[in-house]
Amino acid sequence: MNIKVKGLSSTKFGELWDKSLINLVEEATNAALTDAKLKITDIDAAFIGTMLSGETTTQSQMGSIFASLYGVNIPGTRVEAACASGGVAIYQAVQFLKANPGKKVLVVGVEKMTDLCASKVTDLLMQAASQEERDSGANFPSLYALVAQAHMREFGTTREQMALCSVMAHQNALSNEKAQFRKKITVEDVVKATPVAEPLTLLDCSPITDGAAALILTTEAPSKSKKEAFIVSSAFATDTLSLAQRESVTTFKSTQTAAKAIFADSGITHKDINFLEVHDCFSIGTIVALEDIGFVKKGKGGKAIEKIFKGDKSLPQVNVSGGLKACGHPVGATGVKQVVELAARMRNSTGYGLAQNIGGTGASCVMNLVASSDTLI
Amino acid sequence: MNIKVKGLSSTKFGELWDKSLINLVEEATNAALTDAKLKITDIDAAFIGTMLSGETTTQSQMGSIFASLYGVNIPGTRVEAACASGGVAIYQAVQFLKANPGKKVLVVGVEKMTDLCASKVTDLLMQAASQEERDSGANFPSLYALVAQAHMREFGTTREQMALCSVMAHQNALSNEKAQFRKKITVEDVVKATPVAEPLTLLDCSPITDGAAALILTTEAPSKSKKEAFIVSSAFATDTLSLAQRESVTTFKSTQTAAKAIFADSGITHKDINFLEVHDCFSIGTIVALEDIGFVKKGKGGKAIEKIFKGDKSLPQVNVSGGLKACGHPVGATGVKQVVELAARMRNSTGYGLAQNIGGTGASCVMNLVASSDTLI
Repeated sequence: MNIKVKGLSSTKFGELWDKSLINLVEEATNAALTDAKLKITDIDAAFIGTMLSGETTTQSQMGSIFASLYGVNIPGTRVEAACASGGVAIYQAVQFLKANPGKKVLVVGVEKMTDLCASKVTDLLMQAASQEERDSGANFPSLYALVAQAHMREFGTTREQMALCSVMAHQNALSNEKAQFRKKITVEDVVKATPVAEPLTLLDCSPITDGAAALILTTEAPSKSKKEAFIVSSAFATDTLSLAQRESVTTFKSTQTAAKAIFADSGITHKDINFLEVHDCFSIGTIVALEDIGFVKKGKGGKAIEKIFKGDKSLPQVNVSGGLKACGHPVGATGVKQVVELAARMRNSTGYGLAQNIGGTGASCVMNLVASSDTLI
Repeated sequence: MNIKVKGLSSTKFGELWDKSLINLVEEATNAALTDAKLKITDIDAAFIGTMLSGETTTQSQMGSIFASLYGVNIPGTRVEAACASGGVAIYQAVQFLKANPGKKVLVVGVEKMTDLCASKVTDLLMQAASQEERDSGANFPSLYALVAQAHMREFGTTREQMALCSVMAHQNALSNEKAQFRKKITVEDVVKATPVAEPLTLLDCSPITDGAAALILTTEAPSKSKKEAFIVSSAFATDTLSLAQRESVTTFKSTQTAAKAIFADSGITHKDINFLEVHDCFSIGTIVALEDIGFVKKGKGGKAIEKIFKGDKSLPQVNVSGGLKACGHPVGATGVKQVVELAARMRNSTGYGLAQNIGGTGASCVMNLVASSDTLI
């Protein structure tokens, strides 16, 4: 079943100290309703993805926030899968629509992170890892640094190839007025930035961000008078919370599993994909994603990013939004923002956009395939 | 679509200091698989309801726990709706099965609460309320005390009628070997217990509990050789997080909305229901539930509980498990445990059991209707 993106919106991403968690939900919801030309009373159910609303703002039960804001008594479900919370909210909204055709579903992803100090937020994010990883003193920069080191050792991936992922993200964000960072950086800037976890520096790491994004999804048929965006496939897979439990730390089996499902379900090929939004919480994430989704063979992601940066047409454009690195990473919002970005592009182009949203070090992966309505048979 | 309860299980509920959150998930999952005569590799997707796993045990992304425990890469979704987290996990599993007939879905509800001191847990539970309620210094005993006071004032409900809800729950739990409290109490015991929030005493309040419960749900046809339990309807509605935003504090609109949906969807009447599990987080909750579900008119819940206690056959048996009060209330597990209880009964009787699972002071309500297979047309 093809799911229409009837409405879409995103707040500014950044340090939004004048906006609360609930302000962000309201702003994104109102803008998505306006975009869809709908009222809140037209909505039959809501899904909200947030990882840390309880921990950072003391607010849980966020599925009831629409009743509080608008007086509607709709089913409102908060889902959480760490940094894949937004993607899972979309995935479950798609399942809900398959079960209940004709309904209209609101999906909101949101996170409010910058009111706490960075070390506290880094601790809280570690709830997405395993107990053994927390007990060992690891944090996500160090876990992704392990992935990066293994990738360099096994495949000869270079420091500069990883840095290029951040350079590309920052370059792309220059034209995204919602992005947290709109500042051009160079490979040298990345390599010489403050060390975080060898080999990763500050500029290999996505920032701490506030923001929200929203979608309104329906099962309506495509319009005959205008181009629209559709979610044509949604897939979700998990893997062990611990890196140590896996056969390989340079392959995310969750991404491989979800990607296989997307291509099998949709019948499209890698060549059909024009835009790819990958979960670059750390620069190495982009390289691993290109491999695990199957655009290149394992170990060739570093070379691929060089080609993409040079505009090679055999590969998709990657993280045109600026990605998590430059657009910002309000964790629960990210998966929704990726689809908002792709759907907005598909309203104005022909083809496909694919989003990959990761929780932890690959313990969750959701992929959503967005198509322009003129590709639908 | 009728959903078969293929497997069911519950751990002991109580202060389980020798078991971790993940031990509880594993124990409930293994027992449900054994009950269903299935292997974990037969399961296509999992839903897990937990409110506070991040806050009490530092573990989020609980949907990936099945990958960690068993090496399966299935979609694993954590849902949270405060104390209705378990009910929402079932509701979304039902939607998933409607969207994907033929699949097998695992639902686990779990909470690990007793490793923290009671005042800390009470604070954390307030994440289910609104910011204004937290700022005013309220907690859930005081919010439910407001409901109780208003109910007494408006309808003449007596202190003793409320106490009777706890007395009945404790009496029923005597025969439930999984219950936290298996101790007979009297109305006098309740009234004279340590005051908590006028008029509620300690024995009007459900306890802080560890525990897990699990279900395996499928779309299989009923067996011809044995009686089975089916979820024949599932409904979910929300209301404002704040009591202050509502027209009335003695009516939970979320319950009314969900109940209307259950009766409309299933076509059964109140008279058809043999067993009713209601969300008695506080004794007044039982009285309000009987009214809002529609067994009696608003204001008549106190009288109704007297009749039920005396064995009046015109009303269902209520909280035969011992309810939240005596069986215990591991918040994310409760909604699943209610359906486990009803489904186990429906395998050995003919008729219907209805579960009402509440988040906050009625900000979420999920109702699940369980039927014995011989009632299915």
